[in-house]
Amino acid sequence: MTPKNKRVFLFSEGNATMRDLLGGKGANLAEMANIGLPVPPGFTIATNACTEYYANRQRLPAGLMDEVKAALATVEGDLGKKFGDPAKPLLVSVRSGAKFSMPGMMDTVLNLGLNQETLRGLIKESGNERFAYDANRRFIMMYGNIVLGIDKRRFEGILDETKRRRRVTLDTELSAVDLKNICNEFLALVLTETGEGFPGSPYEQLELAIEAVFRSWQNERAIVYRRQERIPDDIGTAVNIQAMVFGNLGDDCGTGVAFTRDPATGENELYGEYLMNAQGEDVVAGIRTPVPISALRRQSPKLYEEFDAIGRRLEAHYRDVMDLEFTIERGRLFMLQCRAGKRTGPAAVRIAVEMVGENLISKEEAIQRITASHLDQLLHPRLDDNYLTDRGIRPLATGLAASPGAAVGKAVFDADTAERLGNAGEKVILVREETNPDDVNGMLAAQGILTARGGKTSHAAVVARGFGIPCVAGCDALSVDSIERRLSVGTVSIAEGEVISIDGSRGAVYVGSLPLIPPDVSGHLSTLMEWCDSFRVLRVRANADNPRDAAQAVEFGAEGIGLCRTEHMFFEADRLPIVQDMILAKTETQREAALAKLLVSQQADFEGIFEAMDGLPVTIRLIDPPLHEFLPNYEDLVRVTTELRIAVNTLGGQATKDVLEEKEAMLKAVEGMREANPMLGLRGVRLSIIFPGIVAMQTRAILQAAAKLIKAGRSVHPEIMIPLVSTVNELKIVQVQLEAVAKQVVAEQGVEIPYLFGTMIEIPRAALTAGEIAQYAQFFSFGTNDLTQTTFGFSRDDAEGKFLGKYVELKVLPANPFETIDRAGVGQLMKLAMEGGRGQRPDLKCGICGEHGGDPDSIFFCHELGLDYVSCSPYRVPIARLACAQAALNDRVKVTIDK
Amino acid sequence: MTPKNKRVFLFSEGNATMRDLLGGKGANLAEMANIGLPVPPGFTIATNACTEYYANRQRLPAGLMDEVKAALATVEGDLGKKFGDPAKPLLVSVRSGAKFSMPGMMDTVLNLGLNQETLRGLIKESGNERFAYDANRRFIMMYGNIVLGIDKRRFEGILDETKRRRRVTLDTELSAVDLKNICNEFLALVLTETGEGFPGSPYEQLELAIEAVFRSWQNERAIVYRRQERIPDDIGTAVNIQAMVFGNLGDDCGTGVAFTRDPATGENELYGEYLMNAQGEDVVAGIRTPVPISALRRQSPKLYEEFDAIGRRLEAHYRDVMDLEFTIERGRLFMLQCRAGKRTGPAAVRIAVEMVGENLISKEEAIQRITASHLDQLLHPRLDDNYLTDRGIRPLATGLAASPGAAVGKAVFDADTAERLGNAGEKVILVREETNPDDVNGMLAAQGILTARGGKTSHAAVVARGFGIPCVAGCDALSVDSIERRLSVGTVSIAEGEVISIDGSRGAVYVGSLPLIPPDVSGHLSTLMEWCDSFRVLRVRANADNPRDAAQAVEFGAEGIGLCRTEHMFFEADRLPIVQDMILAKTETQREAALAKLLVSQQADFEGIFEAMDGLPVTIRLIDPPLHEFLPNYEDLVRVTTELRIAVNTLGGQATKDVLEEKEAMLKAVEGMREANPMLGLRGVRLSIIFPGIVAMQTRAILQAAAKLIKAGRSVHPEIMIPLVSTVNELKIVQVQLEAVAKQVVAEQGVEIPYLFGTMIEIPRAALTAGEIAQYAQFFSFGTNDLTQTTFGFSRDDAEGKFLGKYVELKVLPANPFETIDRAGVGQLMKLAMEGGRGQRPDLKCGICGEHGGDPDSIFFCHELGLDYVSCSPYRVPIARLACAQAALNDRVKVTIDK
Repeated sequence: MTPKNKRVFLFSEGNATMRDLLGGKGANLAEMANIGLPVPPGFTIATNACTEYYANRQRLPAGLMDEVKAALATVEGDLGKKFGDPAKPLLVSVRSGAKFSMPGMMDTVLNLGLNQETLRGLIKESGNERFAYDANRRFIMMYGNIVLGIDKRRFEGILDETKRRRRVTLDTELSAVDLKNICNEFLALVLTETGEGFPGSPYEQLELAIEAVFRSWQNERAIVYRRQERIPDDIGTAVNIQAMVFGNLGDDCGTGVAFTRDPATGENELYGEYLMNAQGEDVVAGIRTPVPISALRRQSPKLYEEFDAIGRRLEAHYRDVMDLEFTIERGRLFMLQCRAGKRTGPAAVRIAVEMVGENLISKEEAIQRITASHLDQLLHPRLDDNYLTDRGIRPLATGLAASPGAAVGKAVFDADTAERLGNAGEKVILVREETNPDDVNGMLAAQGILTARGGKTSHAAVVARGFGIPCVAGCDALSVDSIERRLSVGTVSIAEGEVISIDGSRGAVYVGSLPLIPPDVSGHLSTLMEWCDSFRVLRVRANADNPRDAAQAVEFGAEGIGLCRTEHMFFEADRLPIVQDMILAKTETQREAALAKLLVSQQADFEGIFEAMDGLPVTIRLIDPPLHEFLPNYEDLVRVTTELRIAVNTLGGQATKDVLEEKEAMLKAVEGMREANPMLGLRGVRLSIIFPGIVAMQTRAILQAAAKLIKAGRSVHPEIMIPLVSTVNELKIVQVQLEAVAKQVVAEQGVEIPYLFGTMIEIPRAALTAGEIAQYAQFFSFGTNDLTQTTFGFSRDDAEGKFLGKYVELKVLPANPFETIDRAGVGQLMKLAMEGGRGQRPDLKCGICGEHGGDPDSIFFCHELGLDYVSCSPYRVPIARLACAQAALNDRVKVTIDK
Repeated sequence: MTPKNKRVFLFSEGNATMRDLLGGKGANLAEMANIGLPVPPGFTIATNACTEYYANRQRLPAGLMDEVKAALATVEGDLGKKFGDPAKPLLVSVRSGAKFSMPGMMDTVLNLGLNQETLRGLIKESGNERFAYDANRRFIMMYGNIVLGIDKRRFEGILDETKRRRRVTLDTELSAVDLKNICNEFLALVLTETGEGFPGSPYEQLELAIEAVFRSWQNERAIVYRRQERIPDDIGTAVNIQAMVFGNLGDDCGTGVAFTRDPATGENELYGEYLMNAQGEDVVAGIRTPVPISALRRQSPKLYEEFDAIGRRLEAHYRDVMDLEFTIERGRLFMLQCRAGKRTGPAAVRIAVEMVGENLISKEEAIQRITASHLDQLLHPRLDDNYLTDRGIRPLATGLAASPGAAVGKAVFDADTAERLGNAGEKVILVREETNPDDVNGMLAAQGILTARGGKTSHAAVVARGFGIPCVAGCDALSVDSIERRLSVGTVSIAEGEVISIDGSRGAVYVGSLPLIPPDVSGHLSTLMEWCDSFRVLRVRANADNPRDAAQAVEFGAEGIGLCRTEHMFFEADRLPIVQDMILAKTETQREAALAKLLVSQQADFEGIFEAMDGLPVTIRLIDPPLHEFLPNYEDLVRVTTELRIAVNTLGGQATKDVLEEKEAMLKAVEGMREANPMLGLRGVRLSIIFPGIVAMQTRAILQAAAKLIKAGRSVHPEIMIPLVSTVNELKIVQVQLEAVAKQVVAEQGVEIPYLFGTMIEIPRAALTAGEIAQYAQFFSFGTNDLTQTTFGFSRDDAEGKFLGKYVELKVLPANPFETIDRAGVGQLMKLAMEGGRGQRPDLKCGICGEHGGDPDSIFFCHELGLDYVSCSPYRVPIARLACAQAALNDRVKVTIDK
């Protein structure tokens, strides 16, 4: 329909679908105009003109201005005014407007068309000399700055100087004469700065302003913004030229912005603010305080109703919450902009659910409109962004967003203090260089955790996510002095007991106490989740290591546990010494005694978890980490023994000598066990082949716990998972051994237990030989954390701190592959594994238990692959339910398109 | 031809191809009998009877003894003797004999068929009472031990007691009466021990003896031996029953063993020893000293010539060196066994080459008969096995065979001492807990290197292999005290200056000085290598990091360098401080200054290498290891700073304080750079993306060196290799940058340089996305060390010490995947990479530079994949040339079979 080389579109020629060509603002102005809303007439120079401008060495396309003039003539005809006409002058705004909103990044010129002649016409027509000079000084300043490139502060200096001389503080206190003088001074400034006078021809003004808007597409802040928001650089901006309407012509004039529903809560009521006798920039400038839109209902019920009706109409038309700009000129309402309204997570959920109730949108649409970050806001306490913005509060330091949610508390520097204060009811943030298993008691008692070192898989991060505690990890800028009990960032120093706030969703640390918005698992969320469940194909499980998390997971809708890490139980304070005894045992008898003690505790753990899961399947991963993780830190031992050795040599003393000997023995043990690359060392199934006793004990604990519950009439479905398999023989050896243990327990207990044996697929070779592995494995669970590490050869601990950030910045990788599955590499291996595994065993149960199990993009991929379930942190279960539903709905769209 | 259930085969019914059925010994006895050699008549009970025996709960198959009797009847007919006949008694030997030789592992009974009646017949027939009683007491003892299960020492006790009473030391000093009494005492022992008398029926004796031989297939030592030699457990043994001939009937009798050529040197002359008037076991027992076979020529020229002729005939028949057993009974020669002779490496090469000259075998066969370990013996000094065996010398300790060859020298415990003594002409072995770059000067001056820690890729191992220095690494049992300057193993302690010997081919350490056999790169080897080169398709390159190794590689026949590791140059003593300055630079200027200094040295390195390679292609890998490898060890710094801190606190002193500050600064730097899993950290191309300066310098150094040589009229083919790529974008970013440097150097120098850019394929993701990567890479080099690490998720440093040994022992893996490419996993990725890479770029040059490049099995796989070349240590180049030829010859066999 549209000629290919058409570059200028009257509002009557456009519509909302033409965003590519007209930009968001232009398309919506056209749409509003065409459905009969009061929009000041105007037209849009399309983005193709901008592209041509850049292709043509920054020259306006030939003939463009002719098209502009023709369009302008139509506007003149509509309004009975003329551009540059001294009698009835038409003034226009020239605004940028790209396909994607880039608020404030590009330039705008208002009141364009003023010169000495048209100014006189404006005075006469408005009957308001002060208004006209005010409009003129605004125009000269904006134009002088944006089009002519004169520093804005030069103009502001003149304005301030006048105010100083007149001893006033507000612009509004200046008289018409003052403003006239200011205009003259502005024009003089332009003359000296540019060496030429201010352009008098409105058409020249217009042409230069159009060029300036095109230029602003490539200004520094626009480029940075696009990189951040992943907006392409080559799509260009449109330019909207529209007749000016004035909200500052008197008390029957005004201007404002509003949302059709409250963007913070989602409440279905007009939400916004306005100012009478003002121009748009005054609302933003903050010199006068705008009034809530509800006041308009009292002040002018007719206007309010007209505006409210327009809002309703636009909502019905766009089927979404709208963000509106309006101006009232002499009692007449004009719409200047409309777009879909940005909203908080809670608002997004409420609006989507209520709009389904209002028959505005379908359930499917409601689901597709909610994002993971919307839900994340509902599931954790969060900082109040408005509070931060209003007060200009910036973080003291930033680190990795290691576990979502915000927390406020007193900084404490060791776990025991954290535990003591925490148990006494104090809110504390545990601050450590990095955490280790000894710190778990304090971590559990803290509101939040902050570490200076370690990545997203560091001990702090893993434990925090597991327990749903907000955590900022690897905060490099932080110096933690646990002896002086203080942290410092540059010159700022915070002592123990001083309050800090952390935002684990963004990795930010703040000085002092910030207000928190509590999580909101309202009725709307559960309605939305029910809808999600009705569409999704993938099941959703949770990663949970203890009864508390298991219960939390069920509450969030988990349909089983996809990963229960048994070794986390080993780190608990009362277990660790027994685990160490087991590791350091010199005889088999000692080792068996330690294992027998652990059996009792582990069985109790599993009973609790099975009870919480009440018949749902529970995948239990047998011991995975290298044993040296359960022993004291090597470097600490080096330091301590060096100190003790010197003490013994200089001071002597039998007691010191004894301690030295004990520490040296431990050092020797740790030295013998430590590894160059523990991630690739003696762990997982390898450990079970070398030391079969531990997994035999664990299997017995699992099945004895299961038997006990079954005898009590409960249902239990344990799935025993053997980690880190790289060849079928590893699985075979261990599984055969454990099947024997299982048969023995079944025989002893005299009950049938519906257990399965399976494996993680987390090593490339396992994926490559999955067909062989599925001869033994009854289920696969993709451990995509380790699979990503080995497929890329990236140690997550090292990569995230040292180069992954840069990789994403330089677009070496499209995203952090530890957050979103790398389809080309890791995904290819998963596909091979699915084909191999299901080829061998068509009913092979397949799931994912890496952290990708809670990432929407990765969930979409799992859906495509045909997995049976995803498993993620309890706190991401609702997000996973949403993403699973979206994945299923995407299929429908594809089917529809395919048809 | 053979009925399927036939289980007993007369020698006339068998031949050499029937090893599966008749075992090696039986098949060769049949073959010899059938070509008319003097073999005592007999028959073989086939392996299928043994399999049946075990399938049938260890009972002899029904009807077997009937078959045996029928065969025995034929033997009786041939000899005119009868089994159990008091007049002309036939005695037989009953010997085990599996398909694969298992020397001494299973049981044998001689002189079977003796009882009171036949004994009298034997006395009469032999006219030698003493001989007959001697035969009888041997029979009762062997039978009593093996068949009846009576402890051998009980019989020996009786024998010793008689000798004590008779005051003699040798069995031969006992009279006929003594022996008769001993026989009676033996029979009494059997009666008390078994409760039954010694079986008098020869057939009963025979049946029980056959069963005993079958049983011995599953005795403990046979099982262990089979596991070690990878002989299947289910193939069973045959039993050979053969008429006895006696070498101990008088001075015209004798027995001996011989090789048709010298198995140590390969010299073409009968080699062996014999004893007159003796039985086989006497030759082995060592009581009388056997005489060299050459003595027979003088003693009995006719017998010697007959035997020599038989040897020639068997060599011609089997087309190989033969290992023979013979007995002379009353001047008549009997052949009791023949098999292919085991030989040393030097002998194997000489024999193969000479046999081609004698038209016995083809060049192709000669090549196929040589193994890698044969060549390895020729290429390095080695210990004299005979010397060790003769003296019963056992290792003090064992570790990893980290670099082949043996060495003898004084133990020294630091690099500087090693360097000082080494330069003074002393032979030293450098003994360290583990080595680091500071030790390289001492390593180069040492004969051998011994470390207590570290795997086959430890610093010591890598450097040692690179320089061809024998090395035993990771010798756990060793305690190295570098302060007291001594090593200890258990209670044995060796001080500095005491001599030790190490065998880097087997990972053994010995006390004292052992004789070494020097390497032998004789004319035969070069003939063999020429033949190899005429058959092979794969090209062979070497891994060499310096001009010395490059020259060595060319001498061994390398056709280029497949891997030149540039960072090894950084470790040299004069470079390391500059490298550290570069790493720790606080400003860009400092960093550039350090790089400029390195540029000069690196250019000189490359000039030397290019010169040595004289026009052959040289693949240079840009910097690969993490930068912290060039800085001091973290734990050492922790120890030192702890000590210094205490010293400053207690004693003060500005000098100490200054040192502390310096060390603390270094500690902080190292702390900031060290990684949890350095193998998966900031190294390779990742380093080049974060710090582009180093590789830009290296590229400049390479191309400036190339330009200099080209200007001097030389030919140079540098191939610049970017390591550790996991995604095409990494390669693209770095390659684009380096291409710019290259163009600049070409422009500056004004000469064309035929350089290529390529990458290692050493990360699973690179293999999976090889098609994309080949858009940029002009060549691929498979880095199968790292590819194996990442595909399996094995850290080689950790795995080889901690679990890989056990994995191979338990058959979790068929072989150490770091030695032989894992075809199912790593091989699958290589195949995908070849398909992807050549699909994108059909002329893509592909090689391998992991250590697998020197492993024959892996070379066969590389040949199958269609690689262009393999690259290995200079000292393995001849082995690679051999394996490449064997791979090509295997193809021919396949083609022949396919036809």
